[in-house]
Amino acid sequence: MRAGPSQEEIRRHNLGALLRHVHLGGPTSRAELTSRMGLNRSTIMALTADLTAAGLVREELPRETGRAGRPSLVVRPESARVYVFALDVGVDRLVAARVGLGGTILDRREAVRRRGPFSLEEVAAPLAAFARQMHRKTRPDTVCVGVAAAFSGGVARDDGVVRFGPNMGSVDVPFGEEMARRLGLGLPVAVGNDANLAALAEHARGAGSGCRDLVYLHGDVGVGGGVIAGGTLLGGHQGFGGEVGHMIVNPRGRSCGCGSLGCLEAEVGERALLEAAGRFDGAGALVGRDAVRAVVDAADRGDIVAQAALKRVGDWLGLGVANLVNIFNPEMVVFGGMLREVYLGSAAQVRSRLATDALPPVREHLRLRVSALGDDATLVGAAELAFSQVLADPLEVLARAGS
Amino acid sequence: MRAGPSQEEIRRHNLGALLRHVHLGGPTSRAELTSRMGLNRSTIMALTADLTAAGLVREELPRETGRAGRPSLVVRPESARVYVFALDVGVDRLVAARVGLGGTILDRREAVRRRGPFSLEEVAAPLAAFARQMHRKTRPDTVCVGVAAAFSGGVARDDGVVRFGPNMGSVDVPFGEEMARRLGLGLPVAVGNDANLAALAEHARGAGSGCRDLVYLHGDVGVGGGVIAGGTLLGGHQGFGGEVGHMIVNPRGRSCGCGSLGCLEAEVGERALLEAAGRFDGAGALVGRDAVRAVVDAADRGDIVAQAALKRVGDWLGLGVANLVNIFNPEMVVFGGMLREVYLGSAAQVRSRLATDALPPVREHLRLRVSALGDDATLVGAAELAFSQVLADPLEVLARAGS
Repeated sequence: MRAGPSQEEIRRHNLGALLRHVHLGGPTSRAELTSRMGLNRSTIMALTADLTAAGLVREELPRETGRAGRPSLVVRPESARVYVFALDVGVDRLVAARVGLGGTILDRREAVRRRGPFSLEEVAAPLAAFARQMHRKTRPDTVCVGVAAAFSGGVARDDGVVRFGPNMGSVDVPFGEEMARRLGLGLPVAVGNDANLAALAEHARGAGSGCRDLVYLHGDVGVGGGVIAGGTLLGGHQGFGGEVGHMIVNPRGRSCGCGSLGCLEAEVGERALLEAAGRFDGAGALVGRDAVRAVVDAADRGDIVAQAALKRVGDWLGLGVANLVNIFNPEMVVFGGMLREVYLGSAAQVRSRLATDALPPVREHLRLRVSALGDDATLVGAAELAFSQVLADPLEVLARAGS
Repeated sequence: MRAGPSQEEIRRHNLGALLRHVHLGGPTSRAELTSRMGLNRSTIMALTADLTAAGLVREELPRETGRAGRPSLVVRPESARVYVFALDVGVDRLVAARVGLGGTILDRREAVRRRGPFSLEEVAAPLAAFARQMHRKTRPDTVCVGVAAAFSGGVARDDGVVRFGPNMGSVDVPFGEEMARRLGLGLPVAVGNDANLAALAEHARGAGSGCRDLVYLHGDVGVGGGVIAGGTLLGGHQGFGGEVGHMIVNPRGRSCGCGSLGCLEAEVGERALLEAAGRFDGAGALVGRDAVRAVVDAADRGDIVAQAALKRVGDWLGLGVANLVNIFNPEMVVFGGMLREVYLGSAAQVRSRLATDALPPVREHLRLRVSALGDDATLVGAAELAFSQVLADPLEVLARAGS
């Protein structure tokens, strides 16, 4: 119910919209921007001139046009010059990447993470070291416009503090603050739930590109989710929205780390699958993504224990998806993390459950897809979170970054 | 990613915003509008003049100000002149009302509806007759700016066709089109799912006023829901969002009208409660809201069968609410329809389930409330839907209405 925007707000909005176009869509001709944004040519020219002067985009003659006449200039993001740091705190790995405007991963470092009780030091120290190494290698004319991290836990929107996570219980980890201090770049570190960020990434650049209503399910040790509703990430009151892994699907079922019985996480998570397949905690047994892949491969080769395990897990996954489909009426459900493998190995079971348990008009147009960004969905989501400030207010962020 | 708004769009937005202020907030002084809308005095004066000229608001001296100096004029909605028709197709009743701008119910007609197979004629004929009766009684200087209906079924957003409902199976009922034809007012009839509209109403004028994230649960024969996420109704891809009644909470549970087992609707709906209380289908047994109230009253008086029935139903209701709280992280859950009574009779059970099954940081700030609008929540929601066009573009709608 607030008032309409001022001229200055409209300009800022338009600058951000144009930058977002080339950030997500890649090099785009002025003519295309004119038609896609519904603005006239002179406005596009003025906006492009501002962004060019700020060093965020550059204009070039297109390689070839195939048409007669003067070709329309192509606007490209300055990927090599303007970048963010994206961090990913996964259950089994830590990743830091330098990502250029436009989404290009310019540099990355990765370390294996041992499972066990959470320690801030053990996570923050290597990530900070990676970022410093990458920062030292940058040219002097480059500029870092944001830093963000994906964290496999519940992250409060107000302060970016991690409030809960698998194997963490209820905690208060000021992860963003600690990372900002260690990085010393003079920039805050935004923190988001990993599944929420992966959902954003799949929506912006992945399987769900163009979908306004999407449910993303992310499997790890735990099961998380991210929901895009009407084009926007469902955050909820405190930012914990989308914790679909703790939807109870089987009230007499397996016990969950959260204390309840039969949460989706308890029935379809890594441990549920490996136990059902008789592969949990055996001597020399694999864990993590490799272990999940091994079950799917074994089922493919005809191993009946692995097949039964996938059938069992697929059945609960299907019930959970049916519930979410009835609740959200999404256009697409995307399976990511280890649920990508689980879905690929149990698609028939999932679809059969949907046919029984989802309301017919709601499932009619539903598409089921696996993550297009794979294991990097969370990292790409962190990069998008880091870019969100510069896309909202390009000139202001650049001015603050001291370019 | 579209361009910023034009001057004309900003004016339209501001006219709508001002009208919405007085529609929802009641008579408001110019001074208050100036500060709440963040616009300067002359803009507020110009907007008010436009709305006054269009006959949507009028300005008056306030009754008493208690202050020295010239009092700020008060802007009031023209409730007696500008109105909508709101229709409510409930399971047990049909209601039509003439609702004035500002939300005043000016006139209403109601009929009992017999339960049984759905018939368009049996629903549309009395509603049209009611609307015609009320229309004939209006003064010549009044203007109808919209018509909308709440329908207990799944309503497609694109065409307002009812696609499914309790006791209806999967159908295609062009209810809005049929009502518009019968009313002959030259206005389209917007149709919305009753629980969705009740959620909008509780958000705009009821228990959830001021909440940006709210889950509304509606009990009738069936159980429906409406979710306000970030201030906006969750519609989903086709408009069927919020069908939380078909979330399976007990996969080995009672059979549901949809064909599944253990849907929330099957475990906490009217029939589940009455059967558990041994009061279903007995000779002379009550049905509907009265029957539900009778169980709650009996439990209050110490009837142990009724107490056990409420405990059982409250337990499943609590599990369902815990799931929704984990998924949506709402600020508030509102119980409406017959679930208002069920919640009042089983609040301890619901809260105990929440304490076990909802993630602690997610339930920490959660408020549980019963519907403030009671049985009229769906009707009020229909009125708000009918007003939505005039609030989006006041002058255009009025011009079309031929005032």
